Amino acid sequence: MKIAFIGLGNMGAPMARNLLKNGHTLNVFDLSRDAVQSLVDAGATASASPKAAATGVELVITMLPAAAHVKSVLTADDGVLAGIARGVTIVDSSTIDPASAQGFAKLAAEHGNPFVDAPVSGGTGGAAAGTLTFMVGANATAYEQVNPVLAVMGKNIVHCGDTGMGQVAKICNNLLLGITMAGVAEAMSLGAALGIDPKVLAGIVNTSTGRCWSSDTYNPFPGIIETAPSSRGYTGGFGTDLMLKDLGLAADAAKSAKQPIYLGALAQQLYQTMSQHGDGGLDFSAVIKLYRDVGAKR
Amino acid sequence: MKIAFIGLGNMGAPMARNLLKNGHTLNVFDLSRDAVQSLVDAGATASASPKAAATGVELVITMLPAAAHVKSVLTADDGVLAGIARGVTIVDSSTIDPASAQGFAKLAAEHGNPFVDAPVSGGTGGAAAGTLTFMVGANATAYEQVNPVLAVMGKNIVHCGDTGMGQVAKICNNLLLGITMAGVAEAMSLGAALGIDPKVLAGIVNTSTGRCWSSDTYNPFPGIIETAPSSRGYTGGFGTDLMLKDLGLAADAAKSAKQPIYLGALAQQLYQTMSQHGDGGLDFSAVIKLYRDVGAKR
Amino acid sequence: MKIAFIGLGNMGAPMARNLLKNGHTLNVFDLSRDAVQSLVDAGATASASPKAAATGVELVITMLPAAAHVKSVLTADDGVLAGIARGVTIVDSSTIDPASAQGFAKLAAEHGNPFVDAPVSGGTGGAAAGTLTFMVGANATAYEQVNPVLAVMGKNIVHCGDTGMGQVAKICNNLLLGITMAGVAEAMSLGAALGIDPKVLAGIVNTSTGRCWSSDTYNPFPGIIETAPSSRGYTGGFGTDLMLKDLGLAADAAKSAKQPIYLGALAQQLYQTMSQHGDGGLDFSAVIKLYRDVGAKR
Amino acid sequence: MKIAFIGLGNMGAPMARNLLKNGHTLNVFDLSRDAVQSLVDAGATASASPKAAATGVELVITMLPAAAHVKSVLTADDGVLAGIARGVTIVDSSTIDPASAQGFAKLAAEHGNPFVDAPVSGGTGGAAAGTLTFMVGANATAYEQVNPVLAVMGKNIVHCGDTGMGQVAKICNNLLLGITMAGVAEAMSLGAALGIDPKVLAGIVNTSTGRCWSSDTYNPFPGIIETAPSSRGYTGGFGTDLMLKDLGLAADAAKSAKQPIYLGALAQQLYQTMSQHGDGGLDFSAVIKLYRDVGAKR
Repeated sequence: MKIAFIGLGNMGAPMARNLLKNGHTLNVFDLSRDAVQSLVDAGATASASPKAAATGVELVITMLPAAAHVKSVLTADDGVLAGIARGVTIVDSSTIDPASAQGFAKLAAEHGNPFVDAPVSGGTGGAAAGTLTFMVGANATAYEQVNPVLAVMGKNIVHCGDTGMGQVAKICNNLLLGITMAGVAEAMSLGAALGIDPKVLAGIVNTSTGRCWSSDTYNPFPGIIETAPSSRGYTGGFGTDLMLKDLGLAADAAKSAKQPIYLGALAQQLYQTMSQHGDGGLDFSAVIKLYRDVGAKR
Repeated sequence: MKIAFIGLGNMGAPMARNLLKNGHTLNVFDLSRDAVQSLVDAGATASASPKAAATGVELVITMLPAAAHVKSVLTADDGVLAGIARGVTIVDSSTIDPASAQGFAKLAAEHGNPFVDAPVSGGTGGAAAGTLTFMVGANATAYEQVNPVLAVMGKNIVHCGDTGMGQVAKICNNLLLGITMAGVAEAMSLGAALGIDPKVLAGIVNTSTGRCWSSDTYNPFPGIIETAPSSRGYTGGFGTDLMLKDLGLAADAAKSAKQPIYLGALAQQLYQTMSQHGDGGLDFSAVIKLYRDVGAKR
Repeated sequence: MKIAFIGLGNMGAPMARNLLKNGHTLNVFDLSRDAVQSLVDAGATASASPKAAATGVELVITMLPAAAHVKSVLTADDGVLAGIARGVTIVDSSTIDPASAQGFAKLAAEHGNPFVDAPVSGGTGGAAAGTLTFMVGANATAYEQVNPVLAVMGKNIVHCGDTGMGQVAKICNNLLLGITMAGVAEAMSLGAALGIDPKVLAGIVNTSTGRCWSSDTYNPFPGIIETAPSSRGYTGGFGTDLMLKDLGLAADAAKSAKQPIYLGALAQQLYQTMSQHGDGGLDFSAVIKLYRDVGAKR
Repeated sequence: MKIAFIGLGNMGAPMARNLLKNGHTLNVFDLSRDAVQSLVDAGATASASPKAAATGVELVITMLPAAAHVKSVLTADDGVLAGIARGVTIVDSSTIDPASAQGFAKLAAEHGNPFVDAPVSGGTGGAAAGTLTFMVGANATAYEQVNPVLAVMGKNIVHCGDTGMGQVAKICNNLLLGITMAGVAEAMSLGAALGIDPKVLAGIVNTSTGRCWSSDTYNPFPGIIETAPSSRGYTGGFGTDLMLKDLGLAADAAKSAKQPIYLGALAQQLYQTMSQHGDGGLDFSAVIKLYRDVGAKR
């Protein structure tokens, strides 16, 4: 299949690479020459603009930092919509707010192009290994069409509903993740301060009603889970500033829906404090430092 | 084994019954005559006071509403310590603050009696079925001694550390539970307001990083999990006022340890609001009504 | 002075009217024909576009709902910057985020036009009476120039610093206002529930360390202050949805500055809940209903 | 008048001293010999117990750290109630929860003694200068009786209602104070981070709707108000751990009244964090360090 891939950052580059490996033909575009060259070396064709990349392809995939970039890539004079053929589907794997995704879908529909939102989880590791989860917002026809291509880059392709619902699924999951992680940090720190062995406490929680992914797979307390970022100085993993971005999207979506998010808004302030402390680059489980890193404070 | 069982409420009565069924001999005491009579009918011997119940037994078990009751039952003129023989172990299965448990242990030690804190989870259903989880704070010797007796009333007997650590484990787990439940309520309500099918959202969360017991086993959104209280009008289950009690114990313990519990304190206010609204008797997953029950408000 | 006035809503219209009354000549523009006609009847000249309005004037004043409108009014093909003469100052009295204000100032400077941010407080009453407070962000020269014109529409003209600082002053004040009001609601409700006469409590607070404008001038408890919205069913005053808008601006600014706003974020959720309940049009002091309006909930 | 004064700490000692200076005769009791000796040197008579102190006096005043101490001082075998004559009034100036105060009043009534709760504000400075504020819970008769004595130690004697209402007034005021101070810290820190001159911001807030005692009299930002603790390294003033104590009382009272205190509970966690950081002895306005003291954290 001939595909345009736009956005070759930490996530986009390995995703594009997996498409190439599986025999797809790629036009690629990115503002970074190095990023483009690296994909060209792997067999892709460099395009001078999103418009050029989208010209003559059967599918367009975008993977960009925020809604403003998607808008520009789609609607600029040299953007995707200026080059794409009628009927060709656009898949946006960026994490953006649902309302923007729905707006882009409307815009694309006016040009005769189906638009699919397909944000991912699984991080750079999953992108490289081709084991990402794709949360897909699309009508049934578009979903059937893009599924085989996404399956080359990920192992779980979940149909979440119509356009925008992929983004809704992602931000709701990550809202909950941001809360449970801070909650585990709080409970583990309290337990440790009260004298219980943190490993024993984690063991109990993990077989009881407090059980959650943040506790049984990614426990923020150092030394509980060897493979978790907490056991390697909170390096790697899912960066605090990325969690902040997703909580910001959740807050914006909540505002638009007039929904309160009491715990989410408070968790956001905790991650915000980490970012203020210069810890925005650490894995988000480092939020436990706010509850424990007392020595460093004095 | 000859055992004194003091406190025959919704939890204590079925626990005592299971001891009788397994061949133990019981002296029982409770302020409610009906509660006592019911156990006598099942084969227990009624005692006139905690002191009388504790006289001549090999083990004392207490199951009471709060630390004040435990204190009174132990230290009153006609209390347990006035009747118990030196060396006999006292097991307190009440949920109370760790500091009180440790204080009672010290007091008991002065009388030559080991003291074990062994709060439970599993509710009245688990108490009746003998499938409770016991979180046990005790030294190794006392733990070995009480384990076989507890195993008659529960299926998971977890050694959490020295005296008080059973209580620590329970309040830390329930602190986290109170947070994750409100977090799931928040995320599910937001998703529904944004238009995603709640069942689809739950399915995604439950196979992703937001996964937790409050989502995959006890989801507060009606209709997701048939066996959960949310699918039967929030009746039965774990009452909001009981969750409030446990969050209060966590708050007290946090204060004594100078630990902040940001999310826990906020979750406590949410359950407090439910209680103010007259919903303290509903299952605690009804907290989702604060996020959704808009119609009823107008 | 010949002035262009763009944005004739609930605030803009009476402000423009005061300029006319004081002998200024006005070009006016608004998307609402009725709003324009009303000002024309008072002596203003209708303009076909912001560009037309700005052509040939000595000062441009804008009063618009949000930054997106300001951007459009300034930069559209028929916008202010297309018509304004070099050197003419633009005063924006809209409440927007400081970063946008600073961006507009940069844009205006490139066209040779000073830009002043001058958001107001005082509401529609103050706008009509000419008693608004203007919080002005401008260099000294621009401040001196616009001061006499603003003095026609307000009675307190406060120089807050360079461009953007008018907006900073407003959102920081309103952030604090949103917090103190919810705080007073919380303290008054608690006191009333504990049995103290609310008037007595207010009297004590107002002469003590809890004293604040939300308590001594605008107390949310009904019947304490006759002139406050709380004594007339929370009608009039400063609408909840406007408070939500300002807290949203504070949250955005805090995010950009990597500052946590713990209490502000929580207060935002409380006002959000009011808005969800359909109370977004009530005065923001109606937040006390979340603490007291129990009867209505059942 | 012959008075028993029990509790000669940082507050009690100067209060007792003012009574002596104004010609009253005092029996004093405290566990600290030094504290007693110092008052004896000033003309008081040392008593061997609360009972001894209360014997033969016309009024008993207690000033103690917590409800547990008041209970013990009143009800111990050698306590006040064992020595006091029928009809003699007991004034408790300790800050305790309203329910305890009401419980003591009931107990005292059974012995034929009126009980008045009269917590104070004004700190050690006010105690020494005789300028305290007394918040008095008492029936009209008792209030009339104690007023002249309290007026020797304070300058504002406020009748808050029946027994317990003095405590209610104090905890509600201090709940609000704890919230407004953290709110001012939040708003001032945000403003400073966004570039406004903190003095200018404080000036605006103090003449606007954000105005409060925490801003115009006790601003936590250093250098705004010369006489505030913030301008002397947060020494002196009202200690963080005392604020924590009062917020704890408010939380307990809220729990008993089934009232949520959203902002108060969150503010409590902020002060709790300060205490965890070893700053419990600093003035409570040092809460601003949580928003600004970033350098020290790294």
